Amino acid sequence: MALVVQKYGGSSLESADRIKRVAERIVETRKAGNDVVVVCSAMGDTTDELLDLAKQVNPSPPERELDMLLTAGERISNALVAMAVESFGVEACSFSGSQAGVITTSAHQDARIVDVTPGRIQEALAEGQVVLVAGFQGVALDTKNITTLGRGGSDTTAVAVAAALQADVCEIYTDVDGVYTADPRIVPNAKHLDRITSEEMLELAATGAKVLHLRAVEYARRYGVPLHVRSSYSPKPGTTVSGSVEDLSVEQAMITGVSHDRSEAKVTVRGVPDNPGVAGRIFRAVADAEIDIDMVLQNISGTESGRTDITFTVARSNGEVAVAELEKIQGEVGFTEVVYDDSVGKVSLVGAGMRSHPGVTATFCEALSNAGVNIDIINTSEIRISVLIDDTQLDTAVQALHSAFELGGDEEAVVYAGSGR
Amino acid sequence: MALVVQKYGGSSLESADRIKRVAERIVETRKAGNDVVVVCSAMGDTTDELLDLAKQVNPSPPERELDMLLTAGERISNALVAMAVESFGVEACSFSGSQAGVITTSAHQDARIVDVTPGRIQEALAEGQVVLVAGFQGVALDTKNITTLGRGGSDTTAVAVAAALQADVCEIYTDVDGVYTADPRIVPNAKHLDRITSEEMLELAATGAKVLHLRAVEYARRYGVPLHVRSSYSPKPGTTVSGSVEDLSVEQAMITGVSHDRSEAKVTVRGVPDNPGVAGRIFRAVADAEIDIDMVLQNISGTESGRTDITFTVARSNGEVAVAELEKIQGEVGFTEVVYDDSVGKVSLVGAGMRSHPGVTATFCEALSNAGVNIDIINTSEIRISVLIDDTQLDTAVQALHSAFELGGDEEAVVYAGSGR
Repeated sequence: MALVVQKYGGSSLESADRIKRVAERIVETRKAGNDVVVVCSAMGDTTDELLDLAKQVNPSPPERELDMLLTAGERISNALVAMAVESFGVEACSFSGSQAGVITTSAHQDARIVDVTPGRIQEALAEGQVVLVAGFQGVALDTKNITTLGRGGSDTTAVAVAAALQADVCEIYTDVDGVYTADPRIVPNAKHLDRITSEEMLELAATGAKVLHLRAVEYARRYGVPLHVRSSYSPKPGTTVSGSVEDLSVEQAMITGVSHDRSEAKVTVRGVPDNPGVAGRIFRAVADAEIDIDMVLQNISGTESGRTDITFTVARSNGEVAVAELEKIQGEVGFTEVVYDDSVGKVSLVGAGMRSHPGVTATFCEALSNAGVNIDIINTSEIRISVLIDDTQLDTAVQALHSAFELGGDEEAVVYAGSGR
Repeated sequence: MALVVQKYGGSSLESADRIKRVAERIVETRKAGNDVVVVCSAMGDTTDELLDLAKQVNPSPPERELDMLLTAGERISNALVAMAVESFGVEACSFSGSQAGVITTSAHQDARIVDVTPGRIQEALAEGQVVLVAGFQGVALDTKNITTLGRGGSDTTAVAVAAALQADVCEIYTDVDGVYTADPRIVPNAKHLDRITSEEMLELAATGAKVLHLRAVEYARRYGVPLHVRSSYSPKPGTTVSGSVEDLSVEQAMITGVSHDRSEAKVTVRGVPDNPGVAGRIFRAVADAEIDIDMVLQNISGTESGRTDITFTVARSNGEVAVAELEKIQGEVGFTEVVYDDSVGKVSLVGAGMRSHPGVTATFCEALSNAGVNIDIINTSEIRISVLIDDTQLDTAVQALHSAFELGGDEEAVVYAGSGR
């Protein structure tokens, strides 16, 4: 008998029928003799609908109230799944994040889980109940206000609850049946991965693979929670995320996959005086607006004139604010102009095998060059190479890399309706 | 500066526009220098929609989960009203029933408030915030589960919060502008009442007047909370419910109004052996099914045969169960048959003046007789006379009584869209 935590996403819960199917799977798992804890996202478009209502009554809704509002969505889906489970004669009981002991920071809309005190969950499990925990939400340690965890919050809830309960596995049910060597909509022969290390998954999630949320993968890695990505609509075995690249032998360490990301934009600050501290001043201005910077390039071409260009990428959703913040300091810093470009894309190659195969970067660059793709910025980690390119060439680049590193399988990947979230 | 509790019903909150209008009124009250606590029902049909979803996933949804589900409705409306209030530059903050300290019994779907510990409400008021409290919900003292208060629950929440805060007034905003001498849809010249004692309001609410819920009026009377019934859509002054009939002089004590009720059904148990304890056995069977009995009549006509008939009324919604429970004990008790009749209606006359004017009952019976209305069962309190009649004659009876006791005003009452809830 194992303790299994299962997480179901919003599209798996978008109607009464889908909720009943999810309930069937939960009941199956319970009847197989497992203790089961389930974390649900809000049904289908509930969150967007609530957000829309909020904007109608207040164009900039206060974040505390937004959290009170949005958390109702998970509460609804959770209670409905509990009812559906009970209709199969299996006892179930749903808890809000607060009742389940999900304690967070007080940063509304983007709280971090600081602790899970799962006393009530454990009591209910001991009574033989299936326990439902509302995803995406918690209660702030200091203010006692209800908080939400930001994007991918329900995945994080599931992992945090699994960690607190020392669950045997945290199953993330989604609309794809696992992790692939590339997005099957771009690379038709992308191969399904049965297993991947947590570091590789982290790099893939950070560079655009949408199947798991970065924060959840980080949490799982930190607490050693084995993740299992599975499809809500198929009985296929999915992908197991566990273990570390450190434990892989040289033979096991391979190139794992290609990811891509269309959500970034490039900001270039031109004619920056080449004095110590100036780059710091520029990045500080962006950081103070709570905007994360991803890739950075400082051109050295202009040093003779005493001026240089600084290029970096930010999320497109933050682009406007980043430019505005920079323009505020233009006088003080004395640069020439800020150029904003959102027609860029990022393609990344991830794999533990890079550490032991020095030729990877060369092959990577050759493959792109042969495909006619120009590299704008390059950025690497021990197990990843990422480049910024023109977004119209993104699909070509993904295909070229996938092929150059011989990642393809023999059969076409099955893409489910609505996949790619 | 006063402490004002305001309660808004679901139809006043059914759209973003209506929510903004409610927010305007709240802001006005706050800007007039009052401390304001607001209790909201769920928006429009939210509760029914959630109930419908529940039935789709489980035809007999477990009550604990039903409470988790339905309470999401008030949480949504509450947060939206808070946002709308903030859009006017006034600070607001919403609390769930549990956060607001609304402690109840653990009877899901029909919990009673046992205490309100308003510490968080008071802190927020001290900070100058408008405080929103989700109506209809609380947390059970023993199980820590979320509960709902049953029909009219948000009115009761408002009164209980007002009592705990020793508020100066509890304003109940609804879609009519107060209490009338009769339902204006039946009696066009029904007169608006500016003031009514809590005992009279209690009798009116108990006998079918829908403007306030019985439990809320009882609670208000017990804790001396002055109620003020007002329209969400008009600035009219409404009706104040306060004081006791004991404090009225003979001149002040009058006949207040006529109420009617179509929600009851008549159950007649025929051929009951006229032995001690038999009536008790019959009523116990009904009570054990948690069904309330209203009016009772034991015919004396059949005593010569050693058998009698027992007639009583129950809510129509309980009729089927009541009959089934009685048929279970038919063999044991030895009665002839159970006859069920739901084509009955109840009309009541309420007024403190009855106590000092002995002719009221006679006038009452004459008025009905002159109108050709037959009385089936009669039932009185110190300040009320109720009779059960044929439901097709209900409007006629209301009009006849209203006219016989000269309750009408000079102008036609204004009936708002959707009134009569």
